[in-house]
Amino acid sequence: MKILEERIKQDGVVLPGNVLKVNQFLNHQIDPDLMLDIGKEFVNLFGKEKITKILTIESSGIAPAMMTGLLLHVPVLFGRKKKSSTMPGDVYCAHVYSYTKKIENTVTIESKFLNKNDRVLIIDDFLANGEAVSGMLEICQQAHAQVVGVGIAIEKSFQGGAKRIKDQGVHLESLAKIASFDNGQVQFVEESK
Amino acid sequence: MKILEERIKQDGVVLPGNVLKVNQFLNHQIDPDLMLDIGKEFVNLFGKEKITKILTIESSGIAPAMMTGLLLHVPVLFGRKKKSSTMPGDVYCAHVYSYTKKIENTVTIESKFLNKNDRVLIIDDFLANGEAVSGMLEICQQAHAQVVGVGIAIEKSFQGGAKRIKDQGVHLESLAKIASFDNGQVQFVEESK
Repeated sequence: MKILEERIKQDGVVLPGNVLKVNQFLNHQIDPDLMLDIGKEFVNLFGKEKITKILTIESSGIAPAMMTGLLLHVPVLFGRKKKSSTMPGDVYCAHVYSYTKKIENTVTIESKFLNKNDRVLIIDDFLANGEAVSGMLEICQQAHAQVVGVGIAIEKSFQGGAKRIKDQGVHLESLAKIASFDNGQVQFVEESK
Repeated sequence: MKILEERIKQDGVVLPGNVLKVNQFLNHQIDPDLMLDIGKEFVNLFGKEKITKILTIESSGIAPAMMTGLLLHVPVLFGRKKKSSTMPGDVYCAHVYSYTKKIENTVTIESKFLNKNDRVLIIDDFLANGEAVSGMLEICQQAHAQVVGVGIAIEKSFQGGAKRIKDQGVHLESLAKIASFDNGQVQFVEESK
């Protein structure tokens, strides 16, 4: 997705440890118009799948997921990293390790919001090692819900998570695919251009 | 706002300790079309204020803030409850106590995203004791940014936060105002109907 790649080139900052900081438009300050464009692209890619629900994880997944849900008129469900005080005992959960933050979160979904009749599109802001997406796939499996696809804004292709998920037969699409951060510069995978 | 009040009556669950659970459409599962309606209402109320930025706190404030930002074509900035690993030292922060969760969070905003030229609309999902909004007002004060208004989806009017904030001369508008949870039933403040 050209405008997302251009925005990453313009405003993204490469930090040590292969971390890409996009606080300017996605992870802290959010550009709603860009999020709508991302939502439109996910609708182009997955819109024919009769999606009943969008699944994401707080907090940075919420914005792109919301715009996709708005365009498809389906509910957006976000996993909480801590169990909320207003959540009952009946939940699905998965353990998700964050390599960036070096902590493990337990992601929780109330079981009444996901069931075997759901056709789920999983959306997230970043995919690196694939821990968050794997956790969401696990939650859908617990709910016997069908995952029709995974839509990612920014994939760090060199970290292997995308390959691992596709190898399970999951239809995964990423709008910007990063090949490397060599010399602190963002290099995109050629095929995505 | 009639449709929000109706949705609260239909799907809200009153829990002990004056907690209203709206996990069906706002705090866990989100209804994007309702969020767009909420955004339109905030634009009706504050749209003439030459807003340059929307400020909220993760996670449940993001959805209504995003829709308002989309309609006004201005960036949405969300405060993080934990300092992110990709955040530099140069931040504004405020301590926010959550009576529902019984914990204190340090809400953090990167200082480069807020300055004296900003005209800020603060948006949040709930207002009870006003701790979160007070924290965001404090952050705007640190940044010398002008707060043009505060837009709240659901106000628990009986808990005093709204009065305390209005007494500071802040233009605060809430779309659904709850007078009481007597006998486990949601009673709205009459004037909002």
